[in-house]
Parts: sequence; C-alpha cells; structure tokens
Amino acid sequence: MEKIVQYLKDHHEESIEELKEYIRFPSVSAQPSKHGKDIIDCANWIESHCRSIGLEVKQYPTTGNPIIVAEVPESLVENSEEAQKILLYGHYDVQPPEPFELWTTPPFDPTIRDGHIYARGASDNKGQHFSHLKALEAYLKTGTKLPCHVTMIIEGEEEVGSESLYKFIEDHGDLLAADFIYISDNGIPSLDHPTITYALRGVCALDVELSGPNKDLHSGFYGGAVANPATELCRLLAKLHDDNGVVQIPGFYENVMELTDEERESFKNLPESDEKLLDLTGAPALKGEFGYSSYERRACRPTVEINGMISGYNGDGSKTIIPAKASAKITMRLVPNQAPQAILDQIEKFLKSNCPDSMRINIEKGHAGAPYLTSPNGPFALAASRAVEKAFGKKALISREGGSIPIINEFKERLGIDTLLPGLGLPDDNMHSPNEKFTLECFERGKLMSAYLIDELGGQN
Amino acid sequence: MEKIVQYLKDHHEESIEELKEYIRFPSVSAQPSKHGKDIIDCANWIESHCRSIGLEVKQYPTTGNPIIVAEVPESLVENSEEAQKILLYGHYDVQPPEPFELWTTPPFDPTIRDGHIYARGASDNKGQHFSHLKALEAYLKTGTKLPCHVTMIIEGEEEVGSESLYKFIEDHGDLLAADFIYISDNGIPSLDHPTITYALRGVCALDVELSGPNKDLHSGFYGGAVANPATELCRLLAKLHDDNGVVQIPGFYENVMELTDEERESFKNLPESDEKLLDLTGAPALKGEFGYSSYERRACRPTVEINGMISGYNGDGSKTIIPAKASAKITMRLVPNQAPQAILDQIEKFLKSNCPDSMRINIEKGHAGAPYLTSPNGPFALAASRAVEKAFGKKALISREGGSIPIINEFKERLGIDTLLPGLGLPDDNMHSPNEKFTLECFERGKLMSAYLIDELGGQN
Repeated sequence: MEKIVQYLKDHHEESIEELKEYIRFPSVSAQPSKHGKDIIDCANWIESHCRSIGLEVKQYPTTGNPIIVAEVPESLVENSEEAQKILLYGHYDVQPPEPFELWTTPPFDPTIRDGHIYARGASDNKGQHFSHLKALEAYLKTGTKLPCHVTMIIEGEEEVGSESLYKFIEDHGDLLAADFIYISDNGIPSLDHPTITYALRGVCALDVELSGPNKDLHSGFYGGAVANPATELCRLLAKLHDDNGVVQIPGFYENVMELTDEERESFKNLPESDEKLLDLTGAPALKGEFGYSSYERRACRPTVEINGMISGYNGDGSKTIIPAKASAKITMRLVPNQAPQAILDQIEKFLKSNCPDSMRINIEKGHAGAPYLTSPNGPFALAASRAVEKAFGKKALISREGGSIPIINEFKERLGIDTLLPGLGLPDDNMHSPNEKFTLECFERGKLMSAYLIDELGGQN
Repeated sequence: MEKIVQYLKDHHEESIEELKEYIRFPSVSAQPSKHGKDIIDCANWIESHCRSIGLEVKQYPTTGNPIIVAEVPESLVENSEEAQKILLYGHYDVQPPEPFELWTTPPFDPTIRDGHIYARGASDNKGQHFSHLKALEAYLKTGTKLPCHVTMIIEGEEEVGSESLYKFIEDHGDLLAADFIYISDNGIPSLDHPTITYALRGVCALDVELSGPNKDLHSGFYGGAVANPATELCRLLAKLHDDNGVVQIPGFYENVMELTDEERESFKNLPESDEKLLDLTGAPALKGEFGYSSYERRACRPTVEINGMISGYNGDGSKTIIPAKASAKITMRLVPNQAPQAILDQIEKFLKSNCPDSMRINIEKGHAGAPYLTSPNGPFALAASRAVEKAFGKKALISREGGSIPIINEFKERLGIDTLLPGLGLPDDNMHSPNEKFTLECFERGKLMSAYLIDELGGQN
C-alpha cells in the first residue's frame, strides 16, 4: 500500500486538473436539446480516461445517454479465479445549473477557493466517483495487482430517473455480476465523522381528491347545508396522525423492523442534534414520533407527508365559495420491511373508509420504491469500515438515511447484490443548488479510502 | 286601483319595449375602459325616462358612475305633510357578459323566447327595478295621487362594490331619508311562492398561514422530524367543526338569535327540500348542523367555510417536499346578533391557541359586514305582504337569505332605515351567468306588486 499511497500523493495536483477537465462538460441530462452534445462528449471523455489509466472499457449506447462499463483487466487481479468482485457506481450527468446569477463563478468553469472546487457536478457525482477511478489508477500505474475484481459502471441519467440503466441491468446483468456494490453518491456529516450508510427509506406516492358539489357554490346561498370539500379534506387528513405524530393507518407499523439497541447506541456517535436541525431548517420547534430521536425519526421511521394541497380560490381578497373539490399529494417514506404496494393499499382503504358520505373520493396511486437495508456488520461492511478509518484517521460511523435511491433496490432485486454507501460529500456541498462544491480534502481522502477498500477486500478471500 | 291596474295592462307591451331599450346598454361596471361611455349613456337614458314619466330627477356625478335620484313630486302625494316616505333602490350596472359563446342570443340584444326576456341585466337588476318605475308611471300618468312619498335611487356600481353609493349616503343622507326601504334585487322560489326576505347573513373574512421550515425541505432527509405545515394546517382547521358540523370556536354561538317557533313554522311553507338541494348542487349527500333543516342551515345559521387552501406542490407527478408553508382563506357567515369584529377576534384567538409550537401562524383579517334582520310582522312588512298576495294571487311567504347585501346595513346604520326584499327574480334567471333572463310574468306581477305596495302604504298613515 505504501507505493499506492505515495502515487496518490505524487499525482494529487494532476488529478485535480483531470477532475476539472471532467467537470467542465455541462452534461446536464435534464436539458438534452441544449446539452445533448456535451453529454456525449463527457461520456467519450470519461471512457477515454478510464482506458488511459489501464481499465478495459466499453461504452454502451442506450435510447438515452451512453453507459460506460470499465473493468480492471483480469490479468491484474491476484488469484483471479478465486478473487471476489466488487461493483462501483457513478454518474457523469449533472443537475441543471440554473439560476446562473446565484453562482459566484460560472457553474462549468471549475474554480478552487479555500480548498474547495466549485462547479456543478463537483460533488454530485463526478468528484466522488472520480476518487474511485484515481485509486484504481494508482494500482494500475504502479503495477500493483488488485486483490479483487473491480467493475465500474458510470451512467448518464441519474438526475432524470436512470431509465436506461434499469433497462441495462435487465439486458446486461451478467456484466454487472459482483459480490458487493459500493456507491459514493451521498454525504457524511463532517470530515471528522466519516460515515457508511447501510439503509435507506423507501417511498410511495398517492394523490387524493375529494369532490362535493358539481361546481363552486356561493357560500352565502349554500354554506351550512352543503359540505365543504376543503373542510372535509382537512378533517380526513387530520386523521392520518395522532397528536404525537404517530401514523394512524391500521397496519402501517405492522412490518416495521424496529431499531436494535446496537443501532441506537451507534447513532449516538453521529453529530446530530435538535439544535442543529432547528438551525438548518429554520423551523420554530421540532415535532415527531414520541420515543425516537430526531435523527431516528428522519432516517429510520416511516412517515406520511402531505407534499401539496389545493382547493378553491387562493388569490387576493376573498371569493366566497364552497369549492367543488379539494386535493392533496401525499408521499410516504417507508422503512424495512414495509412493502410499498401494501402500504398504498392500506392508506387507500383508510382514506376511503374515513371519507364522509357527503364527498366523492378519488385516489390515484403513484410511484413506489422499496426501503433498503443491508447489514453494517457483514465482511464487506467491515472492510469498508477499516478502509474509511485508515483514510480519514477517524473511526467510521454507520448511519441510515431518510432519502431513497431506487437503483440500489434494482441491484438487489434483479442482481441479488447488496450495496453500502461510503459518502464523500459534505452537508454544505450545495448538491442540486448554486455554488456546488467538492472539498479537496474529501477528494484526497476519498481516493485513499477507495485504495484501502480494495486492499481490505483482499482479506475477504 | 282599478285605473292603475288597467293602465299597467294597457301599457304592458310598451313597457316591455322600454325595458328592452334600457337593457340594450352594455353598462358593465367592471369594464370601465370598454364600457365607460355605455355606462354614462345608460345613466342618462334612465334619468330621462324617470323624467318622462313625471318624476323629479337629478343625476349626481361621483368619482365613479353617476347616481340617479328620482322622486314623486310632492304635489302628487296625498296629504303630503303627513304621508310616510319610502325609498326604492335599484342598480343600472350589470355583470360582465363573458363568456359570449355560451349565450344563445347576444347578451345586449334582448330577445323574447317562451315568455322570458333574455339579456344581461334583465333580471339583475334592470327588470326588477324597472317594475317599480312602471308602477310609479301608472300613478303619475293616470293622475292618481300617491298615498306616500316615494324616492327611487338607482346606482351604477352595485356589481363592483357600490363605493360611490357609500360616499353618497355619507354626503347626501338627507336626500334618502325615508321610513322604509324596499329592494327587489333577489329571487323567489317560484311564481307560486312569492316571498319577502327579511333577514340576511353577514360575512367576515380572514386568511391564515402556517409556516414551519424557512424553505421547502426534502421529505426524505427531514420527514418525520420536522413538522409539515400542510399537515398542521389540516389538523388545525379540522378543529373548527365537530362531527355534526357545529362550529367549535368558543363563544361563536353566544349571541346567535335563535329562530322563533313562528319562523320555523312559516319556513315549512317554502318549497325547499333536501332532494331539491342535492339536485341543484350535485353533492352526493348533505351535511350540516344537527337539529336544523337544510334551509335553516343555509339561511339562518352561522358558518365557517374554507374558501381556498394551498400548500406545496400541486403539479403533475410528485415532489417529495415538506412545504415551507400552508395557507387557507376562510369566511364566516354570520346571523343576528353576531358582531363581525368580535367573531374575527374569536377565530383568531382559537387558531392561535390551537397552533402547535412547531408552526408560526400569521392571520390577516379581511372585510366584514354585519348580518341584517328586520321584523317580518311590522306594518311595512304587512303592507308588502298584502301587496304581494294581490299581485301574485298567492299568500306571500317570508324567508331569510344566506347571502349578504352590505348596502342594506349601511342604510340601517347610517340612515336608521329598515329594508325588506320582495324579490322578483326566479332561481333559473342565470344572474351573473350566460343566458340571464327575466320572466315576463315576473315583470307583470312586479309592476302590480309595486303599485299595490304604494296603495297599501296609504293605510299606514
């Protein structure tokens, strides 16, 4: 490892220049008519770059943006027939940069200030997966054999739903066969708190509409005798939680995997606090399910959220009507082992059975993605933990995250492969916002982490 | 009276032609740049017409549209010094006619079909107050002295808030001094159920906004730990009513004047039914305060209605956010003797004291108008009742209406004069909608009703 660490040190400045070159492509997948050529140029660049560091690469055309699959040549893997195989994942597409006027320096002109590289895509996700590539380069360029097979897949539609990747997994699953997947496409609380994420919440969505009169009615002529859909929607949705924030849908918690004492104990090491959350969100006070910390509530407990709600007249002044209808958009965050379709059925039944006879109810079920959890104590997790500790000089923490990364479920369900997420971003990276940045120390430690991870995986054989 | 009845009969066709001439002016007060000249032309026409039938008329310029005040010359009032004085009210402005494509015949080309005259303004309000004028004409043209003083005021801003009339009442109250006011600017259930309205509900308005986080939050990252303003708004507004539709604001019903047995008994004669209301509104079932009929609920009981509500994202698909805020527009219909400002204070206190500490609450109080009630058994009411019965050949019913006519409170509060509303419109007149019409039999009976009313008032001296 000494050779590899030295290589990474010696080539740090060079790798920053390469990363800048990679970031400079405005590979905005949401804007194909404006950036279609940039996306192709970017895919071609990363393909060439993978080849130049010694990987075997192939670019796969799709109906959307190309997918790049790069592998460490078999001849460079020690004990190749026995060696395990890991899959790394990244995406070369980026979020739209708008609004431009809020950027201190142009979004696609990567600029270094105070130890951070500012540009769209710097942290999400070019900087993070480029760390993996640089670690592979260190092995390959120093002629060090790897103790495991490594395949890296880099897609170009993550920010718009990964449609082509889903299709690719279906058609080319064999190319992605692996014993484990590591993805760095997320954040850690701070450089002092390197963290490996082992669980994500799922999500399912549903729209509900109540309708009463067949048109908006004059509230003077009819108010009092004809039920008001806005009022009835409030009364219906108010039934979703009790005063302590506990969801009241029968069966909702039935399959929820409770946190273990070990998990709860380990979460205490995360730099999370109510004060920090209040400061971050500006909320006047927190609220959530009784008996759980704020972190546990937002990462490990299921929720029912109203994302939008509309009825009647909302302009200036007043319009004295009984609105004909009222609707709400609802999503639920799910945790292991809740099944999205069963939960959708439960809430549908709950809303319908609580709907008063003065209202018609219409429910449209939307998308659904399962929650995800893998063991934070398995051999691949422990290897990652050791690698993180060596790279960051701090003990690796474990965490669960409240968001959802649907492609991880696809890897698990279609290919049977588990994923861990050793994050390299920081909370102030402004992913999806103006002035996105990637901290150069994260890049440096990320490269080391990836190099150590490969080394640690040797011990798995 | 025989002479007068005969005059009205003899001149019926002529009066229809005159009404058509009056209606032909597109006096749309909401569209001053398009119809400013039409409004002036219309005011001039009705001024001339009043003069031509023998009234003393003056047109008063305002900062808005002119106001016409016409009086029966004192010399034509019997026992002039002792005689009582009534004020009649009408408005020559009309609602916008749009959408034009839904009209069978052009809105300002009055057309007679099946005994109805179709045009914008036919029923609201030109046809109704023109009936009064034709009754006065019958007295004046037959040389019959009137048993009471009659002043008629015709304004041109009713459809846009009557701002100039409020100012006029303040400045020229003496011109309007009277013992009683009659206004025909409303409807009756059917020609078989002529009705006099003696009470109206008041109204007061308030907007409420709850805000939590200082921007929309990712519901995956924060959901469960940060309270959701949309959810909290539903929970708050759900507290406004109990399961039976009874308002839960402390003190809300404290000053409500209960219906008398006599009122409830008389309301049974109105052709009102739940079936009719369901049919009219298309609601799947009715709902309202326990212990009251649907008619009583919508005409005589106070309400709290959500007129509009908005929060978060309401477009296609889903946006997984905790919205930063949620707001609702609320109006309350009030009944005698509820005081609008006190009720606004009560609801403000109720909402604030029930607002959870996880939310900031902002309340904006809006407009307020008092409820109105006069006796349906006083001498002026009984005179109207006899006149209605003679004109329609049916016993006059009495009713209270759920809507609000703020100018009536102004007449009461500023000038101390009570108002009754003997309506001449019908439920299918399409006031404010395409294909507005006025039924010619309503015109005919309306002229008779006005003539008999004047005659009956003679008995008051």
